[in-house]
Amino acid sequence: MDLAFVLYPKMTALDLIGPYEVLGHQEGVTAHFVAATPDPVTCDAGLVITPTVTFDELDRADIIVVPGSGVWEAALADGAVAAWLRKVHPTATWTTSVCTGSTLLAAAGILDGRPATTHWAVRDRLAELGAVVSTDRVVRDGSVVTGAGVSAGIDMALTLVGLIWGDDRAMFTQLGIEYDPRPPYDAGSPETAPGELVTLARSLLSGSAT
Amino acid sequence: MDLAFVLYPKMTALDLIGPYEVLGHQEGVTAHFVAATPDPVTCDAGLVITPTVTFDELDRADIIVVPGSGVWEAALADGAVAAWLRKVHPTATWTTSVCTGSTLLAAAGILDGRPATTHWAVRDRLAELGAVVSTDRVVRDGSVVTGAGVSAGIDMALTLVGLIWGDDRAMFTQLGIEYDPRPPYDAGSPETAPGELVTLARSLLSGSAT
Repeated sequence: MDLAFVLYPKMTALDLIGPYEVLGHQEGVTAHFVAATPDPVTCDAGLVITPTVTFDELDRADIIVVPGSGVWEAALADGAVAAWLRKVHPTATWTTSVCTGSTLLAAAGILDGRPATTHWAVRDRLAELGAVVSTDRVVRDGSVVTGAGVSAGIDMALTLVGLIWGDDRAMFTQLGIEYDPRPPYDAGSPETAPGELVTLARSLLSGSAT
Repeated sequence: MDLAFVLYPKMTALDLIGPYEVLGHQEGVTAHFVAATPDPVTCDAGLVITPTVTFDELDRADIIVVPGSGVWEAALADGAVAAWLRKVHPTATWTTSVCTGSTLLAAAGILDGRPATTHWAVRDRLAELGAVVSTDRVVRDGSVVTGAGVSAGIDMALTLVGLIWGDDRAMFTQLGIEYDPRPPYDAGSPETAPGELVTLARSLLSGSAT
């Protein structure tokens, strides 16, 4: 089973590495890191990841994972990821996104009229791009699974492991990564965080249209 | 403020990328990725990360983050990380670990008689290495902060942001990464996972002495 983890400049690493850690250790999988060129990709806080294959070289994958970015409109404008998704999504078993990676799925036409989730600050933008936006943390619609912001990739991928390999395998994976979360604050959603922090975060993350 | 994210072969990427995503976007920080050599480092499920500096070149850091590995005994036997920690820990403001990264702190003498946590499956081994082992998800003792297995790095780093920059900044960060966890199963700790999965995971992860 071939896993394609998509890389692009200024992506948010945790969006990708959560699902990678959950999916990448399953038996019989091969993890590919696919980008526009073979050059190392620099993420938005400086991490440098080396691709293993390019968009031109990889024609198919069983599972595709598309991460988001704090400057997601640049990836949207660039178009390279969306163009590749148009090529590989029709034959993929699962096409997934985390955070604003959903906007790239939408740009490829994959979310037209389809239920999907995204980072809480860009819900309006994803709706403008054609999706039926949900506030759920993980949304599955047929072969497409979307996760909310950044850390939601872990929940998204555990859900996917359960769908593919069953509950026992998903629970074993959760136990292996000791995913028994204990956030030291209760500020992980716009419903629970202080209002002024929500306003500030929205202004930084939501893009030009909101 | 200089952040040193430690890299070594077959490390577990999420151990490092959780804290990286939480700490790396704070104002005034510079993220360094430090390894034994400048060569790209391959993680335990195939992700390739490029170091920005070597152990020889980096003499100090304000915050050090040491990830773990599913084959943690190899890093312990290699000795390179522990040797570097002996050099830089005395002048670091914060020395931290996630998962079995704690065993490397212990090997450097940093955890002698000190409260610390680690992946649930290696608690006995960490005690043998001299730490006073806690089952807490995050343990702070003076300048040393340790996190439990893999995903606990997110909780560890949010705790650290609160200690350094205050509660508002930590909550803002939590909101930015939408860390409102909703695991699809309740199997993230040995207390809640099915017993046979705990036994299997322990046999794979605990190392040769248990």
